[in-house]
Amino acid sequence: MRALAKMRPGPGAELIERPVPSPGEGEVLLKVEAASICGTDYHLFTWDDWAAENLVPPRILGHELAGTVAATGPGVTRVREGDLVGVESHIVDWTCAQCRRGDMHLCRNLRVIGVHVDGGFAEQVVIPEANAIESNGLDPAVVALQEPMGNAVHAAFVEPIEGRSVLVTGCGPIGLCAVGIAKAAGAALVIATDTVAYRLDLARTMGADLALDASDPATEERISDATGGDGVEVVLEMSGAAPALDQALRIVTRGGRISLLGIFGEPPQVDLSELVIQKGLRLHGIYGRRIYDTWERTQSLLRSGALDVSPIITHRLTLAEWEQGFDLIASRHAGKVVLVP
Amino acid sequence: MRALAKMRPGPGAELIERPVPSPGEGEVLLKVEAASICGTDYHLFTWDDWAAENLVPPRILGHELAGTVAATGPGVTRVREGDLVGVESHIVDWTCAQCRRGDMHLCRNLRVIGVHVDGGFAEQVVIPEANAIESNGLDPAVVALQEPMGNAVHAAFVEPIEGRSVLVTGCGPIGLCAVGIAKAAGAALVIATDTVAYRLDLARTMGADLALDASDPATEERISDATGGDGVEVVLEMSGAAPALDQALRIVTRGGRISLLGIFGEPPQVDLSELVIQKGLRLHGIYGRRIYDTWERTQSLLRSGALDVSPIITHRLTLAEWEQGFDLIASRHAGKVVLVP
Amino acid sequence: MRALAKMRPGPGAELIERPVPSPGEGEVLLKVEAASICGTDYHLFTWDDWAAENLVPPRILGHELAGTVAATGPGVTRVREGDLVGVESHIVDWTCAQCRRGDMHLCRNLRVIGVHVDGGFAEQVVIPEANAIESNGLDPAVVALQEPMGNAVHAAFVEPIEGRSVLVTGCGPIGLCAVGIAKAAGAALVIATDTVAYRLDLARTMGADLALDASDPATEERISDATGGDGVEVVLEMSGAAPALDQALRIVTRGGRISLLGIFGEPPQVDLSELVIQKGLRLHGIYGRRIYDTWERTQSLLRSGALDVSPIITHRLTLAEWEQGFDLIASRHAGKVVLVP
Amino acid sequence: MRALAKMRPGPGAELIERPVPSPGEGEVLLKVEAASICGTDYHLFTWDDWAAENLVPPRILGHELAGTVAATGPGVTRVREGDLVGVESHIVDWTCAQCRRGDMHLCRNLRVIGVHVDGGFAEQVVIPEANAIESNGLDPAVVALQEPMGNAVHAAFVEPIEGRSVLVTGCGPIGLCAVGIAKAAGAALVIATDTVAYRLDLARTMGADLALDASDPATEERISDATGGDGVEVVLEMSGAAPALDQALRIVTRGGRISLLGIFGEPPQVDLSELVIQKGLRLHGIYGRRIYDTWERTQSLLRSGALDVSPIITHRLTLAEWEQGFDLIASRHAGKVVLVP
Repeated sequence: MRALAKMRPGPGAELIERPVPSPGEGEVLLKVEAASICGTDYHLFTWDDWAAENLVPPRILGHELAGTVAATGPGVTRVREGDLVGVESHIVDWTCAQCRRGDMHLCRNLRVIGVHVDGGFAEQVVIPEANAIESNGLDPAVVALQEPMGNAVHAAFVEPIEGRSVLVTGCGPIGLCAVGIAKAAGAALVIATDTVAYRLDLARTMGADLALDASDPATEERISDATGGDGVEVVLEMSGAAPALDQALRIVTRGGRISLLGIFGEPPQVDLSELVIQKGLRLHGIYGRRIYDTWERTQSLLRSGALDVSPIITHRLTLAEWEQGFDLIASRHAGKVVLVP
Repeated sequence: MRALAKMRPGPGAELIERPVPSPGEGEVLLKVEAASICGTDYHLFTWDDWAAENLVPPRILGHELAGTVAATGPGVTRVREGDLVGVESHIVDWTCAQCRRGDMHLCRNLRVIGVHVDGGFAEQVVIPEANAIESNGLDPAVVALQEPMGNAVHAAFVEPIEGRSVLVTGCGPIGLCAVGIAKAAGAALVIATDTVAYRLDLARTMGADLALDASDPATEERISDATGGDGVEVVLEMSGAAPALDQALRIVTRGGRISLLGIFGEPPQVDLSELVIQKGLRLHGIYGRRIYDTWERTQSLLRSGALDVSPIITHRLTLAEWEQGFDLIASRHAGKVVLVP
Repeated sequence: MRALAKMRPGPGAELIERPVPSPGEGEVLLKVEAASICGTDYHLFTWDDWAAENLVPPRILGHELAGTVAATGPGVTRVREGDLVGVESHIVDWTCAQCRRGDMHLCRNLRVIGVHVDGGFAEQVVIPEANAIESNGLDPAVVALQEPMGNAVHAAFVEPIEGRSVLVTGCGPIGLCAVGIAKAAGAALVIATDTVAYRLDLARTMGADLALDASDPATEERISDATGGDGVEVVLEMSGAAPALDQALRIVTRGGRISLLGIFGEPPQVDLSELVIQKGLRLHGIYGRRIYDTWERTQSLLRSGALDVSPIITHRLTLAEWEQGFDLIASRHAGKVVLVP
Repeated sequence: MRALAKMRPGPGAELIERPVPSPGEGEVLLKVEAASICGTDYHLFTWDDWAAENLVPPRILGHELAGTVAATGPGVTRVREGDLVGVESHIVDWTCAQCRRGDMHLCRNLRVIGVHVDGGFAEQVVIPEANAIESNGLDPAVVALQEPMGNAVHAAFVEPIEGRSVLVTGCGPIGLCAVGIAKAAGAALVIATDTVAYRLDLARTMGADLALDASDPATEERISDATGGDGVEVVLEMSGAAPALDQALRIVTRGGRISLLGIFGEPPQVDLSELVIQKGLRLHGIYGRRIYDTWERTQSLLRSGALDVSPIITHRLTLAEWEQGFDLIASRHAGKVVLVP
């Protein structure tokens, strides 16, 4: 089969041929229907420090995927051949202290599909049955999108959001999902910020009441005005940009909460005393998806019709066109780019 | 001014003339724009045991109301003449143990407008400033509706509802609000039950995915089927009918929750062992509205456009037509009946 | 090996000889060090309706137990030969909707050790590794007691208890644990009620600030006085007696919470309108133990020295003396009776 | 009367004579029984930037105090002459958005006694009745201590603490209270860190299972060992020292929580990506005391005997000896220093 892999340390990736893998005990073989490109894939491609520390080549990339169950290994009982499934990309050990407390998303022995084990930029892939989420009837590209959308669901629902004013900082695919989720869950007002007009337009499409250029000096005052001077009650930080965090800390109301999901290149300075302690804020570090609670909420939003994420999927390419896909990600003028093997 | 009052113990009520009251320290005088009829008003009218214990005539009735501030007493700082306001009908003492814990809605020395002090079925009414909720720009009938809608908001949001399957038992005005609120807050599925077809039609208008006759023997199975055999995760009990509660306890999934709001004529038998303890349920007694958190969420849902409650307001009458209004309530073939003085 | 078993439908039990079982995949063989008698065992012994519906003879009884790991089956990785372990008595399927939501204690396909599979009133027993909780260094009788104590921990900690006034209704072993847990967790005041003086004495030993005869007409007023007229903030209902529940509903303060654990023989009438809805109470059905969160809290209380449960273990007998043990349970003049094979 | 006041901008303070103030509407006059020195008082004394921005001389200092009600103004209904009361030092407006949401401790128009209005380093002081907390029967020095102890109660109880492993970073008076509170509330293990041996000894007196020098390179490993390699589940950050925060972020377990109370001189760099987001932490900014919930829990811990804070009160001086008191605070070789007028 054909697959996109990192074959040696350093920048780049290549299309290779590989034998189709076989599912072992508790595993399933998927025929990949769609696999989307994540910012993490781009970091692996360009081979930054994080990539060098985490990925040992050769490795097939890709962790946002949808597939049809083609074969099942011994002991598989829940999913069936022919099922369309989404994929929880985090393989957990189920036995560490965190897993035993129900925080499987924080497993100490976490392995990530497409980073620590072979991934889904391929015609076929083997995953544990526990990571396969039945998704029959949905568009495969949307099924693949459930993984990053799950991050946004996790960030949004960690505290109540209904009837609250919400600021989403950063309009990449996860931020765009967050805009739609907040609207679907009855937020009072959803404001999105980014520095790229293309992304702000997508935010409007996803239902943002206001989509503002974060670099415009008037933005903070506009947010303040839109909330009657109170500031927002909820921030979903999806940018990983220090200035966006600063802005969020200033504009969030006293007693508000911030979900932190965007990864910062450098540890930011944070004015904890003035902006966190004296404002009585709660900061939630958000990583991965709660297993399986987040997946249930994600599927509910999609299946009930409360949320249509299709506008986020701006590009569909073949696996062979992967370089064009990675260029689109780098350009920041794309929503989600989906590869179809 | 003209007012509808209970002048003596026993059934009935009458239109009377009264002098316009004056606002005292911390009070405001409202010109009533709309006042809607509650089931409680009907109980006061028919003079049941609860009425006899709580109301000392003469008393002007009416506790769901909207008014324009016509005059303010000394010490009033927040609201201004000309403001359109909704009314929190519960006057609390702010100093009892419950109020000091932030549970003002459970005040030990609660007085209810239209029951313990004069109410809003009148051309004008005096209320404490603390009970006036600024509502400029909304339709006065909707402003009046915020009081019962607040009950539904309180019941719905006491635990997360987004992405959950929800059963609303009882499609009176509060139940109809609950249907709309659940949909607006991203519930996965909203099922409504009642025994009156007229009300089930209104539930469908408010967005119920399924509206079922509670007395149909097939209803439980249909709810089970609609939830893939799991049962619902959330019940909002708005009927006060023992059979509805039984049905809800059976059909709610293990680990689910029930908000109890409907008032039962007789204390029901409850199979606590099988249906509450072994199912690990949480039951929430819901009374009044959280002051002011519920009001903020209520206004957010209305002002953001997430929820349109106007279909619930099925009849608008003049104060002089009050008897027709009470007949409509008794018939159970009305949503909310609004009187305009 | 010797074991106490129910050999046929109907009242009674008998000591039998059986071959030592072998651990299968993921299972461990325990040498039983202590096994305590639960009220449920007594119901199985007397063969009430619940017993007839749930137990298919022949079956070795006993679900509160401590054992030393004597052998491990294939795939066992966490526990080791020689470990002293306590036992979670509920075997769950890990895959139903409840398990996937993290509510394993509410598993739909629950099997109970000593009811649906062979139990621990025996010299040796096989259990799944997942049900073995490492307990090295504790007294085996205390290790066995962790199972019912876990019920009390679950009931007590479902909402905050520190600094609150607490009423424990029913002073059987679980109620006695609840008294000690509430004190260890910084409750402001712990009141216990029962109708048996022997049990009230044990409650005082466990730290109850007040231990009152529930049948004394002055008890409610004494509780009211002890709380400055407010009533208690927390009730832990451990009796399964309808009059105790009534008393609790009356004496709990507005906005308080009740954990329901005691099983009622008949569905009680509950004045939901006056005592649950208008008081804004929360009722929590408590079943089993959260897996594994409850076990962690239970072990912390025991290992930190915050709580000494040894006074609850009033009788230690040999397995051969089982009839005397069951008589003690029936007499209600015992705390926990432990059998040592 | 005699009082300790800041008479002009710049370092220093002086004992002055002033007329006894009179209580106005809703106010009470207290005869001060005890007033303790806070780190904030020392900042006002040395006149740092924060002091220069917040205090307009002349101003009587002192915000941790206990007094006997000597006179009451019009409209005072709750407290009575002769009552011993503790003092909530934050005067709130009760009407801003935060107050209306029940977050009075985050009031936008907050005024602090001894900073924005005259304080308690005086023979008598006038405060709003709403700020007087009935404390009859307690030692006046302990009554004064309730204010900083309330900060620790607020920090400790913002999430469950019972049965958890706890690290308290910083053993000033609030940290020492936190150690005692955690033990009283059933924490599994309480570890305290500081860099001053005198304070670590006090932490041991307050019940710390381990009291460790934060500057010792072996400290992190000792904490890890004490928690079986897991790290602590709860951090109460009371130091305001960036290295202590770093250590805490590293040693807290995945999914843990940190209450932030200590004020940092400079905004610290925080490795949000590695240590907050990927660890799934929750950070709670803690400011002031919840009104009045924190006060209820504080009084419960003191009155139930669950906690004895008297070892924290290491020095009792007269008001005339104030300079010695401020020197003690500066030396970091004191617990709480109490002045008695």
